[in-house]
Amino acid sequence: MPISSRLRDTFVDLVGGDAVLTTGFGGYLTDEAQTSGLRGHADAVVLPRTTTEVAGVLRACYEHELAVTPRGGGTGYSGGAIPRGGIVLGLERMTKVRSFDPLLWRIQVEAGVRTQALRNLARESGLLFPPDPGAAESSQIGGNIATNAGGPHTFKYGATGRWVTGLEAVLPSGDVVEVGGPLRKDVAGYDLKSLLVGSEGTLAVITSAWLSLIPVPEAALPVVALYPGSREGCAAIEAVIGSGLQAAALEFLDERVVGAAKAGLPRRLASAGGFMVIAEADGSVEDAHRLRDDLLDALSEDAKELWAPEGSEIAALWRWRESVSGAVTAQRGGKLSEDIAVPIGRLQEAIDQTVVIGRRHRLETCSWGHAGDGNLHSTFLIDPADPEELDRANAASKDLFALATNLGGTVSGEHGIGLLKAGQLRLQWGESAIGLHEAIKEVFDPKRLLNPGKKVP
Amino acid sequence: MPISSRLRDTFVDLVGGDAVLTTGFGGYLTDEAQTSGLRGHADAVVLPRTTTEVAGVLRACYEHELAVTPRGGGTGYSGGAIPRGGIVLGLERMTKVRSFDPLLWRIQVEAGVRTQALRNLARESGLLFPPDPGAAESSQIGGNIATNAGGPHTFKYGATGRWVTGLEAVLPSGDVVEVGGPLRKDVAGYDLKSLLVGSEGTLAVITSAWLSLIPVPEAALPVVALYPGSREGCAAIEAVIGSGLQAAALEFLDERVVGAAKAGLPRRLASAGGFMVIAEADGSVEDAHRLRDDLLDALSEDAKELWAPEGSEIAALWRWRESVSGAVTAQRGGKLSEDIAVPIGRLQEAIDQTVVIGRRHRLETCSWGHAGDGNLHSTFLIDPADPEELDRANAASKDLFALATNLGGTVSGEHGIGLLKAGQLRLQWGESAIGLHEAIKEVFDPKRLLNPGKKVP
Repeated sequence: MPISSRLRDTFVDLVGGDAVLTTGFGGYLTDEAQTSGLRGHADAVVLPRTTTEVAGVLRACYEHELAVTPRGGGTGYSGGAIPRGGIVLGLERMTKVRSFDPLLWRIQVEAGVRTQALRNLARESGLLFPPDPGAAESSQIGGNIATNAGGPHTFKYGATGRWVTGLEAVLPSGDVVEVGGPLRKDVAGYDLKSLLVGSEGTLAVITSAWLSLIPVPEAALPVVALYPGSREGCAAIEAVIGSGLQAAALEFLDERVVGAAKAGLPRRLASAGGFMVIAEADGSVEDAHRLRDDLLDALSEDAKELWAPEGSEIAALWRWRESVSGAVTAQRGGKLSEDIAVPIGRLQEAIDQTVVIGRRHRLETCSWGHAGDGNLHSTFLIDPADPEELDRANAASKDLFALATNLGGTVSGEHGIGLLKAGQLRLQWGESAIGLHEAIKEVFDPKRLLNPGKKVP
Repeated sequence: MPISSRLRDTFVDLVGGDAVLTTGFGGYLTDEAQTSGLRGHADAVVLPRTTTEVAGVLRACYEHELAVTPRGGGTGYSGGAIPRGGIVLGLERMTKVRSFDPLLWRIQVEAGVRTQALRNLARESGLLFPPDPGAAESSQIGGNIATNAGGPHTFKYGATGRWVTGLEAVLPSGDVVEVGGPLRKDVAGYDLKSLLVGSEGTLAVITSAWLSLIPVPEAALPVVALYPGSREGCAAIEAVIGSGLQAAALEFLDERVVGAAKAGLPRRLASAGGFMVIAEADGSVEDAHRLRDDLLDALSEDAKELWAPEGSEIAALWRWRESVSGAVTAQRGGKLSEDIAVPIGRLQEAIDQTVVIGRRHRLETCSWGHAGDGNLHSTFLIDPADPEELDRANAASKDLFALATNLGGTVSGEHGIGLLKAGQLRLQWGESAIGLHEAIKEVFDPKRLLNPGKKVP
């Protein structure tokens, strides 16, 4: 349903005619959940440039009771940015770096700054913004914060939220709130900042963030190991942790994922394939080398192949690691890829049971992910043009969520609930916690206008 | 007002007669805020041993609308554990280690486990629980979490909350909630865990926590530098950070603090005293030594004295650092010691203005704290028997809070609001954020029974 011309005029007055799209905005109607065939619908797209404009737009929507779906880079996997009517509020034009103090390891950026641009800017001053979710070229820091995005280096450095020291956000009413700032410690109020982190745009629209940075480690040296199967691979992962080695990243890719993606590896494997573990050593040059040796040692038992990339192979390996999701999609044209996380001691069980669940639903399956965090992308391959297959994949996902919670885990380790996992929080939280969850939504968004259907059913 | 004998019988039925104190419980009526003369009053003290007992007690209090002040080790500085009627709910008997998986770097402990006991247990398995607030022998992990306790090593390792992966807590209604668990990543629900961290016992009673641990660094090597004054000392602190050196701790003590405490230093100073900076290098033996050299280099400009403790001097230095608060109290018998935090670039201004504020109120003042986090213990010395002096100190504190927020900082970097800073959050948060804050209290504790008067006025 198109918005009324009066409301369109209101938006145009607020943000300018070029920033209000009422036709031809199909690109704003989905996100990476499109690999499972999901698309949404909206009445208009509004692209504010400033916090004041965001506040004005939200105030108008509040008055007209119009739903608002905030949108970053649209790189999420769970449909969190897929609108169900109302307007899409894209933050892509809010790209200012409001302040940068490299000598004090901090930066304030607007929500639309792309993750890679932020990482590059920090690196030019010898600093690191550690979170490294996939699609860093397209994803935006506001979306990263709204989903508390993870990535391979979360194992050592934590997810996005750990690096946020303050937020500016706009409430559905149009009121602007600021919590925290360029401050490293603050316990004066309840932690509203962490409440907004990972809230998937359902409580407020994040417009700007103060972030802390750290000095770039001198060296980062990955190692790659291949095993006959998940049993040997997961034993190696536990051996690394049990040896007290602090890897920066600790990843796995099962045999099917390695098979789907190995053509792009920067080095030809000696064996036909296998269950892959990637670990990374970082720190000073000397420490990283010594830790790499220790990692190779801890990973060696039962390994059919061990490889320590050097020089340009290192960046190539991580580029390849990031390409894996696309290579898996390419197998059948579509996929339903989840992000359950389990206590690390249950990782092998989760990997093996993913295959069992897929078989039960007659689906090809595979998994890969952030082993050290017990976080796996259990994936069902589908032909997106076949609705019956998608139904089976959705049913398989339900079994997967039950598996995750039975293993003491979570239905979402890093992608968020979005549309794909709507209602699944009840599997892992009791009635009282769910009650608090819904009451908090009510406090921030009493008219239920912000990203409706997400996070809170 | 003593509780009715019927209510006493209810508590005795729930927790046993030895766990209900109705007389002789003076030790439960104050905390470290007693250095400024604060004491509370209560009708009884109840000491449950299990979560079920906590739930029963809270349910009874809910029914009888009796206030409950949760209490850990009573080592807080802001009066957060000081009751204003009702019962004190002491967690000291909940001391079980529910599970410990050293090979997976995680532990689940009950709220009454002492911080040092936890640190010792981890260390026996080569692991570190990094938070190191003062009074670790007495403080309890539940209280550490409820205040998001900091400490010298927060600069590198973050405050207590960073290490909490899950919480079990009891709501005022008596309902038990669990959020998170032995899981390193979880973005399924709003971050209720972080909302409870630092909530000072005003939202729920924390009964147990899942914590993550890391391998103990091989070496930790502090360095000590003395400067003529705050200008040179703060320049040295900024030089360390600006050089991109990741110190594990970065502390300062002003000239007056050094003067009050220097007799206990493990080494006689060559100079008469000065503004002291302590930095610590940790990591592998080689890395820690190299970083220590770099720190000595960065700290050398304008230093009158540099010292790199070795062997047993290292532990002695940190014991001395912890004794500083007591040495300052001993100067006049009492003190009002705050914990404002400011953006690191404003640290010198905060230190210098503390002295100006003290002079304006005719008080002896000093400050020390966690320089790298911009967190300072600005302190006014008082004779606790002189109410007029305490009044002046309270007035000075108000000026100090205004200073902190004018500098873009917070009224509390690590001690919490408690009683001493009641109402001061309004200085740093706008009306909308305050509204959210109060609504969240209402969601968790609609009858306003939990730690009344704290956090939310």
